[in-house]
Amino acid sequence: MEKHFSLDDILAMERFYRRDFMNTISGFRSCQLLGTVSHKGVPNLGLFNSVTHIGATPPLLGFVMRPLTVPRQTYHNIKAKGYFTLNQVTESIYQQAHQASAKYGPEESEFEAVGLHEQYTDTHPAPYVKESPIKLGLQLEEEHPIQANGTLFIVGKVIEVLIEDSLIAEDGHIKLEYGEVVSVAGLDSYFAPKLLSRLRYARPGDEVERLK
Amino acid sequence: MEKHFSLDDILAMERFYRRDFMNTISGFRSCQLLGTVSHKGVPNLGLFNSVTHIGATPPLLGFVMRPLTVPRQTYHNIKAKGYFTLNQVTESIYQQAHQASAKYGPEESEFEAVGLHEQYTDTHPAPYVKESPIKLGLQLEEEHPIQANGTLFIVGKVIEVLIEDSLIAEDGHIKLEYGEVVSVAGLDSYFAPKLLSRLRYARPGDEVERLK
Repeated sequence: MEKHFSLDDILAMERFYRRDFMNTISGFRSCQLLGTVSHKGVPNLGLFNSVTHIGATPPLLGFVMRPLTVPRQTYHNIKAKGYFTLNQVTESIYQQAHQASAKYGPEESEFEAVGLHEQYTDTHPAPYVKESPIKLGLQLEEEHPIQANGTLFIVGKVIEVLIEDSLIAEDGHIKLEYGEVVSVAGLDSYFAPKLLSRLRYARPGDEVERLK
Repeated sequence: MEKHFSLDDILAMERFYRRDFMNTISGFRSCQLLGTVSHKGVPNLGLFNSVTHIGATPPLLGFVMRPLTVPRQTYHNIKAKGYFTLNQVTESIYQQAHQASAKYGPEESEFEAVGLHEQYTDTHPAPYVKESPIKLGLQLEEEHPIQANGTLFIVGKVIEVLIEDSLIAEDGHIKLEYGEVVSVAGLDSYFAPKLLSRLRYARPGDEVERLK
């Protein structure tokens, strides 16, 4: 049966019930470890599930940063250094990635705490997650304060990509499922997506056609 | 083998290759039909795969609107009316949803063109997709122009939810997989996510624990 909730109904929900309800109702999300380094040189990892494609030319991604009502190491490091990495979480590391969402202190490295390894290049200053098969190096581009709740929409430009070449199809499409990349619902439910089909570019009047 | 791409390498890619590469590399996405109605009363559907959770209190979602270099019916209708709906795409309607991404004219209803049905409530003016088990009614809240590429990050407040009650778990979590909600990679690859596990809230020093 279809249930109807008004805004008042939603606001009257118990706090954790509403958090779970609203966090899952927006659908499946990406799941990435965001790597930064502090001005003292301590590497940091945060788990983000709001990373969104903004454009391909130039290559841009955005994500939501929660309100700065408490110290946010990730935000602090991005602002101080101007760079961060995004590393796709896979089936073999999602439990460690989830543990990286725990509130470790600013002197502690989440890499060490959860048993993942740092990887660096000469051309990007922030740490990548060695175990991830899809690693992006970004430069801070813009930040947009969301007036309605004090969050920030952060925009970064992709300036480096490290990727297992077996995951790149001939046409440039990345085969996320071959890399066992996970998706997440809400804050804690991890999924392995199975391909239904790839569909041809849609035009009015055409029949829907499967590419595979 | 790990392949390395610099920003110059990415910008030197053939245009469609780069579009596929960058659209898939950001990971799995949500997939929703966005419903609006024009000032002439023509209902409109658009397919969006950038919808992102922004906050639960108040309930806010955001999505990326492509540059206004061509007429965008969805944007025009949202600005004219102030309201829109988001309807989760499921395994049984993803081919129709994909067809709704074709460029139909402003006098044509995508509902009719692809064979989906409108549903209205007395409390929200935009059309819902009857066939979707998870429907959100939103009010336009903010728009943030992304300087780097001319896209817009649109923020809406959820003021109504219509949902199959069997999809709501006791703690408020929405069981997307029971509703056969799909995820999408890039612009055309549709996935059915399978649950790996739900993990307990992480605290420093704890072992990772499965809730299910």
